[in-house]
Amino acid sequence: MIVLEALFKLTYGMYIASSKKNNRFNGCIVNSVFQLTPDPLMVGMSLNKKSLTNDYITDSNVFGVSILSQNAPMSFIGKFGFRSGRDTNKFEQVNSQIGRTGVPIILDNTICFIEAKVTQTIDLVTHTLFIAKIVASQPIDRHGEPMTYAYYRDVKQGKTPEIAATYVAVKSKSQLGKKYD
Amino acid sequence: MIVLEALFKLTYGMYIASSKKNNRFNGCIVNSVFQLTPDPLMVGMSLNKKSLTNDYITDSNVFGVSILSQNAPMSFIGKFGFRSGRDTNKFEQVNSQIGRTGVPIILDNTICFIEAKVTQTIDLVTHTLFIAKIVASQPIDRHGEPMTYAYYRDVKQGKTPEIAATYVAVKSKSQLGKKYD
Repeated sequence: MIVLEALFKLTYGMYIASSKKNNRFNGCIVNSVFQLTPDPLMVGMSLNKKSLTNDYITDSNVFGVSILSQNAPMSFIGKFGFRSGRDTNKFEQVNSQIGRTGVPIILDNTICFIEAKVTQTIDLVTHTLFIAKIVASQPIDRHGEPMTYAYYRDVKQGKTPEIAATYVAVKSKSQLGKKYD
Repeated sequence: MIVLEALFKLTYGMYIASSKKNNRFNGCIVNSVFQLTPDPLMVGMSLNKKSLTNDYITDSNVFGVSILSQNAPMSFIGKFGFRSGRDTNKFEQVNSQIGRTGVPIILDNTICFIEAKVTQTIDLVTHTLFIAKIVASQPIDRHGEPMTYAYYRDVKQGKTPEIAATYVAVKSKSQLGKKYD
């Protein structure tokens, strides 16, 4: 018996994963970024294979993580979360600079930025789990608080696209608590 | 350049990972539990190889995750977080019941409980990353709020043991912001 309600109680953050392919940049909203080991500093990130950012990371083997500020406006999140970089250049009108790995470091609505080099990829059928070594990290806004996924969902009334690793297939509130076996 | 301060801004929860070996139970505090794919419902969890719970999961291929309530007292967290099951039976005086996978479902200070079967293990030198399919989940306390790692650290003044996946080797506050290259 799987009660889906239980899965909403796992805690996540709100991040933009960014990467590059040749001279192009792309990025998308992710929730599943987590430290795996403290020494060396390794992180894991799960990303849908359909996302263009997955394609870019697979090509360049590097990615960045913008830890979003609680004050990030929905328009900014929507730009990275609900559009594909195939149709639009998401970095237009976004302040950024090139990091040591070559990925774009996002300066807007970001409290900290991490750069990582992929050391291993795990095929999870619909998603890729990237295992990566942190090679750089820096505070961007020392006064900001990180936005949690709970804050995005409950306070900002944000939604989750179906391709997200943390998506749970609940079509309506009445389905919460529905039991599957 | 790695500014360690940045890594403290990643968002985590507070969980107890439980498992079994033969007729014995053990569990320990973890932060790195995260959904990897929505269909099938897969989770990842990183656990230090020194922990007895890692040994039990490796043996039984199943584990449970108690999503801790914000009201969980420090004495309860300390029981699972800062002691080894080699010296003590952590499940003494803890209300639990056996789940469908055989792991102990923790009923105290738990808002939801998840059971998972390991499908893949990734060796990360000091830690094991367990990739697992969720086979059961249930709410235990529908009125509780999940404890975040930030709440544990900032409000409850909690510490992190060195073997934790999310441990960052900062010996004093003055080292925060120290730059490594």
